[in-house]
Amino acid sequence: MKNIVVQKYGGTSVGTTEKIKNVAERILSFKAKGKNLVVIVSAMGDSTDELIKLAKEITPNPSGREYDALISTGEAVSASLVAMALKQKGQEAVSLSGRQAGVHTEDMHGKARILDVKPTRILEELKAGKIVIITGFQGVNSFDDTTTIGRGGSDTSAVVIAAALKAELCEIYTDVDGVYTTNPNLIKDARKLDVIAYDEMLEFASLGAGVLHPRAVEVAKAYGIEIHVRSSFNYNEGTIVKEVLKMEIKNPVTGVAYDENTAKIAILGLSDEPGVAGNLFTQLADSKVNVDMIVQSNQVNQKNDIAFTVSLDDFHKAKEITEALAKKVKAEKVVYDQEVAKVSIVGVGMVSSPGVAARMFSMLGEKGINIDLISTSEIKVSCIIDRKLTAEAVKILHSGFDLAKK
Amino acid sequence: MKNIVVQKYGGTSVGTTEKIKNVAERILSFKAKGKNLVVIVSAMGDSTDELIKLAKEITPNPSGREYDALISTGEAVSASLVAMALKQKGQEAVSLSGRQAGVHTEDMHGKARILDVKPTRILEELKAGKIVIITGFQGVNSFDDTTTIGRGGSDTSAVVIAAALKAELCEIYTDVDGVYTTNPNLIKDARKLDVIAYDEMLEFASLGAGVLHPRAVEVAKAYGIEIHVRSSFNYNEGTIVKEVLKMEIKNPVTGVAYDENTAKIAILGLSDEPGVAGNLFTQLADSKVNVDMIVQSNQVNQKNDIAFTVSLDDFHKAKEITEALAKKVKAEKVVYDQEVAKVSIVGVGMVSSPGVAARMFSMLGEKGINIDLISTSEIKVSCIIDRKLTAEAVKILHSGFDLAKK
Repeated sequence: MKNIVVQKYGGTSVGTTEKIKNVAERILSFKAKGKNLVVIVSAMGDSTDELIKLAKEITPNPSGREYDALISTGEAVSASLVAMALKQKGQEAVSLSGRQAGVHTEDMHGKARILDVKPTRILEELKAGKIVIITGFQGVNSFDDTTTIGRGGSDTSAVVIAAALKAELCEIYTDVDGVYTTNPNLIKDARKLDVIAYDEMLEFASLGAGVLHPRAVEVAKAYGIEIHVRSSFNYNEGTIVKEVLKMEIKNPVTGVAYDENTAKIAILGLSDEPGVAGNLFTQLADSKVNVDMIVQSNQVNQKNDIAFTVSLDDFHKAKEITEALAKKVKAEKVVYDQEVAKVSIVGVGMVSSPGVAARMFSMLGEKGINIDLISTSEIKVSCIIDRKLTAEAVKILHSGFDLAKK
Repeated sequence: MKNIVVQKYGGTSVGTTEKIKNVAERILSFKAKGKNLVVIVSAMGDSTDELIKLAKEITPNPSGREYDALISTGEAVSASLVAMALKQKGQEAVSLSGRQAGVHTEDMHGKARILDVKPTRILEELKAGKIVIITGFQGVNSFDDTTTIGRGGSDTSAVVIAAALKAELCEIYTDVDGVYTTNPNLIKDARKLDVIAYDEMLEFASLGAGVLHPRAVEVAKAYGIEIHVRSSFNYNEGTIVKEVLKMEIKNPVTGVAYDENTAKIAILGLSDEPGVAGNLFTQLADSKVNVDMIVQSNQVNQKNDIAFTVSLDDFHKAKEITEALAKKVKAEKVVYDQEVAKVSIVGVGMVSSPGVAARMFSMLGEKGINIDLISTSEIKVSCIIDRKLTAEAVKILHSGFDLAKK
C-alpha cells in the first residue's frame, strides 16, 4: 500500500480530552491530503505514573507480567479516545492494541525488544478506509501476553511500524517545535534545525536532549525511515531526521548538548594489574549503575587512574562499590565530585573537519573554564566541567561554532 | 480438573489498593483449603464511571467498539493488581483478559451475549499451580475485538466461567452479607436467607433488590451452578442460590421487595380495536422505555383501560408517546401518577400454596393501604400503592408472612 504516513503523539499531546480533539483535527488535515494514516499514541499525560503508583501501593516489586498488563491500559485508553474523536468528526477509525497491530516482542517483560511486526490487520483496516490508531509502547509475546518495550518506547513503536508498512514518513509529535542547536530555554538565539543526521540525533538523544528515544533513532537509521519531529500544538515544520550526505554538511558542529545530572568518580594510583577496570565496571553494571564517560590515564610511575561519570541518582551506590574495590586492590585513593556537568558538541561534519575538538578546548580555556575529563567519538566531543559554568560554556560554544539564528 | 471454585469480587470489594490486599488474603485462605481458584474481578470502585466520563467529553455518542476498548481497561487494572498482590504474598497468580480466558461473545458491542467459553488457558494456568484472575464484564468477538457484556456483567462472567470449568461453587462477593427477606436498612428485623431458589433470586434481582445480576442467575439456573452470595468485608456465610426442592419449602413467601423508582400511566376508554396495545408498547420499546407491569381491564361499555408502569426516569418520554397515541385512537383520557411504588412478595412456595395473593391484599387492605394495580406470576405478586406508604406496606407484609428473625 502506498502513501502511508505514520504519526506518533506523545503523552502531553493527548493529555486531556480537549487535546485529543485537537489531535483528531490534525490527523484529519493529513487524511485530507490523501494519506493512509497510522497513528501511534502514548498514554494520556501522567496516567502511566498513576498506574505505577497503584502497583507500588500493592508491592515494591511487582511481577513484570502483571506490571505490563497494568500499565499497557494507559495507551488503550488514549487510543480508543482518539478513535472516538475521529468517528465523532465523521472519519472511520479503529484503535488496535499492540497485539492486534501485530507487534511481536521478546518474551521478557518491562523492556522487551520488538522482534517483528506483522501488519496484516493494520493493512486490512487501512484498505477499509479507516485511520488506524495503535497503542504505543507495547506488543505481545509468544505466550499471548502483553509486553511493554520500556519507557519512551512509543517512539520506537512508531518507527518499527513505519518500517513494517514501508511508510513514506514517520512523524513524531511532541511538545517542542523540533530539534534545536541547543536548549532554547537556556540560549535565546538557539536555532531550530531543519535537518539532522541519524547519528547526530542518536548522540543528542543519548546526551539527554530527549525529544526522541535513541532506540527509535537506531531503528529509523537501520530501515532508512525519515522522521519528522514536530510540535502537536502548532502547524510549524519541525526537524527532519534522516541520512545526511557529506556534501550537504556546511558546519562541522550541529549542536551543543549538556547534562547537569552527572557526577564524577575517580580511582587514583591503581597498580597496573589487568582486570581491575573490567571488575569495577562489571560490578557497577550488576548494580544497575549506568556509567557514562570512562577515561583511563597512564601515569609515569606505572600506576593508572580511572575516572568515570554516573548520574547523580546513582552516585552513592557507585561510590560505595568503587571504594570497596579500591580498598581491595590497594589503590591510592578515590576522589569524587558531585558538582560537575557534561557539555558536548555534536556534528557528523566533525569527521572531515580536523581540529574541532581543539577549537572547543580553546574556546572554553580562553574563558577560564577548566576541563576535567574529555571523551570523544567520531561525531561528538564531551567535556566535564564545573556545573556552575554550564550555561556560560554552552553559550560560548553555541556562538563560537556559529550555531545561532542568522 | 476438580475442586475448582470461582469467586467474583465486585467494584467496592476492589475499590482501593488496601481492599485489593484484603481480597488477596481472602483468596489465599481458600487456596489453603486445596481449591483451584479462578477469580473474576470488576473494575476498581467508580473507575468505570471515570472512563465513561472521558468518552462523554469526546462525544455524546461514542462508537460501541471503541467504548468497549476503553471501559474494558478498568477490569484489566484491577485484575493485574490482584495478581500482583497474590504474588507479593508468595502465591503464583496470573491475570487474564476475557479474550485470554476464552470468553467468546457475539460481535455486537456494549451488551454482547457470551456465546461460549473455551477455558484452555485457564486450565493450563491452574495446572501450573497458579490462581487465575480474570477481567469480568468482557470477552472477545469474532473480529478479535474486545466486547463488553453490559453493566453488572461481571456476575454473568463468573457464572459462565464456572459453568465452563464445571466448578463446584461460584462465590459472588459484594458489599452486603447476602440476600435478605427484605431491605435490612428499612426493616430492622429483616432476616438473611441461608438459601434462596434460582427463580426467587431472579424475581428479587428483577425487582431491583440487586445483589446479583438477573442474567447471572439465569445462567446459573440453566447450568445448575450453585452461587454463594456473600460479603467481602467479613467471613460470614452468605446466601446460597440453588435449585430448591418443593419438599424443602416451609414458607410460601421468601421475601418482600419494593421499588420506589416507579410511575404509573393509564389510557382510559379505548375502543376495543385490535392492535392498539401492541402499537403502544412497540413505540415505547423503540424509544427504549422499559415497561414493567402491564394491566389491561375490560369495562362493561366495551371500552378498555390499559395501565402500565415505567421507571421515573422514563416517565416523561412514556407520557408523551402515550398521549400522542391516545389522541390518535380517540381514547377518552390519559391519567398518570408519579407518586407510586411497587411492593412485591416473592416465593417459590406460592405455587403450592393457594391464597397467598389474597392474604397479601387483605393484609394491606386491613391497614387502609389502597392497591392501584396488581400483577402476578407463579412465584410473585406485585402491587402498586401510594409511595408514601411503602415502608408501612413492607413492614406489614414482612411480619404478616412471618419473615422476621426468630
